[in-house]
Parts: sequence; structure tokens; C-alpha cells
Amino acid sequence: MPAVPGVKFAPVSCGLKKDGALDLLFVSLPEATDVAGVFTDSAMSSPTIDWDRDVLNSGHARGLVINSANANSFTGKAGVAVVEATAAAAGDVLGCAPGDVMISSTGVIGEQLPVEKITNALPGLNPEEGASWEDAALAISTTDTFPKGASRQVELDGTSVTIAGIAKGSGMIAPHMATMLAYVFTDAAISHGVLQHLLQNAVNRSFNNISVDSDRSTNDTVLLFATGRAEHKWVAQAGDAHLRDFRGALDEVCLDLAHQIVRDGEGAAKFIEITVTGAEDDRAAKAVGRAIADSPLVKTAIAGEDANWGRIVMAVGKAGEAADRDRLAITIGGIAVARDGVAVDGYDEAPVAAHMKGDEIGIEVDLGVGSGRATVWTCDLTHGYISINADYRT
Amino acid sequence: MPAVPGVKFAPVSCGLKKDGALDLLFVSLPEATDVAGVFTDSAMSSPTIDWDRDVLNSGHARGLVINSANANSFTGKAGVAVVEATAAAAGDVLGCAPGDVMISSTGVIGEQLPVEKITNALPGLNPEEGASWEDAALAISTTDTFPKGASRQVELDGTSVTIAGIAKGSGMIAPHMATMLAYVFTDAAISHGVLQHLLQNAVNRSFNNISVDSDRSTNDTVLLFATGRAEHKWVAQAGDAHLRDFRGALDEVCLDLAHQIVRDGEGAAKFIEITVTGAEDDRAAKAVGRAIADSPLVKTAIAGEDANWGRIVMAVGKAGEAADRDRLAITIGGIAVARDGVAVDGYDEAPVAAHMKGDEIGIEVDLGVGSGRATVWTCDLTHGYISINADYRT
Repeated sequence: MPAVPGVKFAPVSCGLKKDGALDLLFVSLPEATDVAGVFTDSAMSSPTIDWDRDVLNSGHARGLVINSANANSFTGKAGVAVVEATAAAAGDVLGCAPGDVMISSTGVIGEQLPVEKITNALPGLNPEEGASWEDAALAISTTDTFPKGASRQVELDGTSVTIAGIAKGSGMIAPHMATMLAYVFTDAAISHGVLQHLLQNAVNRSFNNISVDSDRSTNDTVLLFATGRAEHKWVAQAGDAHLRDFRGALDEVCLDLAHQIVRDGEGAAKFIEITVTGAEDDRAAKAVGRAIADSPLVKTAIAGEDANWGRIVMAVGKAGEAADRDRLAITIGGIAVARDGVAVDGYDEAPVAAHMKGDEIGIEVDLGVGSGRATVWTCDLTHGYISINADYRT
Repeated sequence: MPAVPGVKFAPVSCGLKKDGALDLLFVSLPEATDVAGVFTDSAMSSPTIDWDRDVLNSGHARGLVINSANANSFTGKAGVAVVEATAAAAGDVLGCAPGDVMISSTGVIGEQLPVEKITNALPGLNPEEGASWEDAALAISTTDTFPKGASRQVELDGTSVTIAGIAKGSGMIAPHMATMLAYVFTDAAISHGVLQHLLQNAVNRSFNNISVDSDRSTNDTVLLFATGRAEHKWVAQAGDAHLRDFRGALDEVCLDLAHQIVRDGEGAAKFIEITVTGAEDDRAAKAVGRAIADSPLVKTAIAGEDANWGRIVMAVGKAGEAADRDRLAITIGGIAVARDGVAVDGYDEAPVAAHMKGDEIGIEVDLGVGSGRATVWTCDLTHGYISINADYRT
């Protein structure tokens, strides 16, 4: 992955992970870096989320500190003090106000974070533009089985700009829950208002369309930083025609990262793409797609390589959206299995069973009531998921 | 379990289950039997549901036919013909119109039901008042690991009346999904309008408050029949003071059956009771309770006997209901673990860990925003669930 002009970072170990692995990422950003962000809507969100929302209100950020191994969530007033101390220490290093530093944490919930490990480490760090993206991704990981990154280079108003992002998905260090984090950087010169618009749209087509186990984190965060180092004309209007390729590239980076998270879902063996068409509207299509993606019975059937399409029917039925039983159509791996509310004439399971043995499963469902459509992605539900989440201390 | 005056039944094997086990229950009811019913709200419901709703409109039923091993769901026009043929054959035996016979099916979805096995069996059956409730429960089971029944005897206006019910829960014969069915019979003399009121209330406190895996069947059905054979004064008003004990007994029977379904949930090793208080209203409390009960991460933690209360915080957060992070309180097994948005002072995990090793887990959550409350029940998520649902054909 290429460096992003203006983005300097240092991935280090500060002692939060017991095995001495990378667990702290410190990012330095140039003055006037614009930022956009999307956060968890959990009612139990971490104090880092409250802090970052405040920074986001200014539209600008000078730094970013991310730790793994402890989510600093449900930690009361002490947790708020941890965020303040981290931002103050980073501000000292960067020569900026604490309110210009964004903070993210991921890991165990409900345990106090020993902030001195972070504040002691920060002054000694020397963020560099050419630092390792792979190490950066590892520093924000919990038990992700591979580091996650994606980048694109694209023309914006005749100037080449870079978009590079890293993400982490679901995993365990100590017993805690999965937390999704993603950070995308660009040297494009785009106002934070436009960035926010672009990011919200990209997230709605990527991170908001994936599911590993239907559980929603207290710390989910996606941030997009634009350093403005690229020498094209400043973009301050979301409708600016020069944004077309940039928008597409940003969407691709977000989707690539989102797919990597699903592929590394806890215990996942198969990557599942579910496309719903014929819905009342796009929102309804997404709701039905999520009902299928989150169904334990659908996910276990796929884990068992079982072409049990009756469970897809069940999941459509429970979604609470308009659907016509007698017009429902389902294909698996491009092969029609059901049409007009019944199995297709002379249904032969053999080719569908063969598709189920693959690593990439495609499901298409037409609800028969309108023109709404959506695609969502998930993984199967395996013994691995149970082992990771149940057997940790047994 | 006692016989219910007027209720005659015959549990038999008609050849739908490959191993020759009981798979058909035929129930004969006296004229003027009042009936109430509650059905799945799946948009993909079985044609049996449509049929039973029509019968229910009349408020009366003379017969009931239930088969296991095939859900007759998503079977198109042929599935409708199966229901009509079954009702016609049962009506011939009972000397009543087909429209006086209710039909239920449970088992695999999307496969055609060989109805001749049922219509051939019905004429030879001789329903009896003293037949075995245990056999009746087995005849409607799929791979439930035990037959489910509950009964109470109670005074109604000075007369002793009986309430007896059977139910089935989640299990597998061929790859299909769990289907919840329950049938409750009484000899009380109560109008169908009052029965419907009593049943709806009982279901809202019992069957509607349980979850095994968050997947909702296409065939869920709860029916309540009253033969009127008991010689108390006819009850035609829901506010009738004589109903007090009956209402309590009916609630108990429904709750008992609902708990048996949870205890026999696929792969279940632990029975979990979740009480939510301090919610905006009772509806919000139930929604939060369900979010906790349906969380794969909460359920796997309990399977692993891990007192990972951070996951309960997460589930509260994702429920989408009002909750105050800084007033949230959690107890497990009656032991306070978190209060005012943080772990309790000097939290000692040892007694909580000991509680987690038991078979009955109690969780109480106070949301700190109102006086709404609800209790829901679920089971843990184990390797057994994955094996039953994924490994069936591998």
C-alpha cells in the first residue's frame, strides 16, 4: 500500500497486549486536515465515541490514537479521564490542542484501561510517512487472523490522489466482543462537509451492509481523513463533478475493507453475498438481506454445505417487510431453486450442493413486490465461532 | 396428565417419519367447542395458517389434525390442496364440515407433503378421551428430546375444570427449521371471544417471551379449545370475576410449556431467565430482554460459563431502546456486577463464576430510565446447536 502524503504514523507495542504484540497506533496529521466520521449507534457507546463526535464537530483533526486490547467501554468516569489524558499527551507531542486528537479503543469491555501505558509511550514516538501499513493494521487488531488494508489511486481534477485505509474485525484477546474499526486516509483536498457526505454514502454501501453475528459493538468507528496535500483545486461541494472517480475509489476501499472483515469473521469458513431484489424499496431490501444474513439457521446450513433454501424462506418471512409468498423466487449460486412460491419444476439439488461446497456463496432473493434492491455480506456460523466465544476460559 | 372431558384423540404413525415413529395426531372435539388461536406473523406462513385463521373466524372447531415431519410450507397450490384434502377426510370421519377442522404441520419446508398418508390413516382412527398425552406430544414432535405437556385443575364458579396442553419445540428430522406448536384444551364453558382474550394475554407472557435462536417459524401456532363440558355457568365476558383462577392456571400452563421448549432448545445446556427493569415501558423492557436473549455473544459466553457481563452491556446498547449508560445496573445470579455505568466497587468474579456453572442462569438488568419491566427466557448457544443445524448432512 502506498503512503498518503501528509499522513505519518507509528505502530508500537505499549504493553496492553500481554504477548508484547503491537497494540498502539499513533497518527500525526498536517494542519487543516479535514475529517469525517461514522460511529456506532449503540446506546452504551464508549467515551471515545463521545470524544470523537466532539472533535468531528470542528471538522478538523491533527492526530489519532488507537489502542487495542481494551475497549475503554463501560468504564464510568475513569474511562472519560483515560480519553482526556490520552488526547492531552498526544496533543503535547503534536503541538496541538487535545480537542484536535481523535481516540479509538478496542478490546475487552468493562475493565479499566491502564492509561499510563499509552501516555508513557506517546512522547517517544516518531511518526513517519513511510511507516508500515501492515504494522498499523496489526496494532489495531485484536485476534483478527490477518491485517486488513486497501488502497486506490485515482485522478481528481487532473491530479493523482491516494486513498488508503486499514480496518479491524471481530476477534478475541480476553473475553470481549468484536469491535469494528476502520480508518481511511487521503491526500485529496476536500472539505469535511463533503467528506462526511462521501463517507456516509460509502459506509451505507459497505460497512453497514456486513454482519458477522448480528451483535453491534459499543466502539464501532469509521473515520476518513483528508490532508489536502494533493495540488488539485479545493473541493467544497458534494456535487462537484471532479469527485466522480474519487467517490468510486472511496466506495471501493470501504467495500474492500468491509469484505475483509467478513472473510475474517470469527470462525468464518465461507463468504456469503446476499442480493435482495423486488422489495418495496431499497431500505426494505436491506432489512430482508440482513434478516437472511443474521439468521443462525441460514448460517449454520451454509456452514454444513447444506442447500437448505427453506431456511431462506423462513428468514424472508421473519423480516417484517412486504413480500409475496406466491411470487418469491430464490437462486443459489445462480441456479434457480424456487419460483412463484414453490420449488422450481424438476428441482435438481446436485448443482446447488456443488456450489455450497465452495468458499463463496451467492444467494439471490426476489420478493416480487417492487423494485427495491440491496446486497449484504456475511459469513457462516461454525463450531469455530462457538469455540472462540464460549470455550475461551473452559 | 388428566383427561379433559370432551377431548378425544388418537396419536398414530402414518408413515411420514421414516423410522415409523408417531407422526399424526387426530383430535375430536364435541359440538360447540369454542376455540382461540395465535399464529406466526411470518410473511411466508404455511397454508395451514391461512386455513386455521378462517376456521378461527367462526369461533368453533370440531376437529384438529397435526402432522409432524413435513411443514407443508412454501408448497404452492399443491400445499393448499393438501390442507383441503386433510380437512375433508377428517370432516368425513367426524361428521362435520371441512371448515370445522383445524390443521397444523411441522417439519421440512419446501417439500411436497404426501397427503394420502394422512387421508388413508384418518378413517381407521378411533379417538379416545383417555388416550396418552405423552404419545400425543410425541406425535407432534420432530427431534424434541422429550415430550412436552402441562396441566392444571382449577375451580371456576364452584366447578372443577381441567386445563391440559402439549407443545413441541425446536429440532430436526430432515434439514428444516424449528417450529413451535402448542395446543391447550379445557372443559370450561367459555366463549371464543373470551378465550381469545385470555390466550392472547397468556401467550404474551409465555410463548412470546422465549427465544432459542431468534429465527421465527412459518408454522408457529398456539390453539386453545374449550369443550364446555364443565357444568359451571357459561362465561361470555372477559371481565367475569369467576375467571380469575382460570386465567392464572392458563397462564401457568402456557408458561410451563414455553419453558419446556426453551429447556429443549437445540443444543441447549442452560436455561436463562432475563429480567429487565427500569425501562421506558414494558414494551421497551421486552425489546431489551430479547436483544440480550438473542445475542450470540451473550449466549456463547453463557455456554462457556463465562461471566462476561460486558456483552450484556453491548446487547442493551444495540436494542435501540432508551437506556442510561451511566445508570445501568446488572446482576447475575442475584450478585451485583455493575452499577451506575461501571463495574461495582471491588467486584469479585468468583461467586458469579460459580453461578455460571449451574444449569439455571439469572440475569437482571436495570436500564435506569423508567418503570417498564419484562422477563424473557432463552438458552445458551453451544456446539450442539451447530452440530444439529450444520453437520446434519456432512
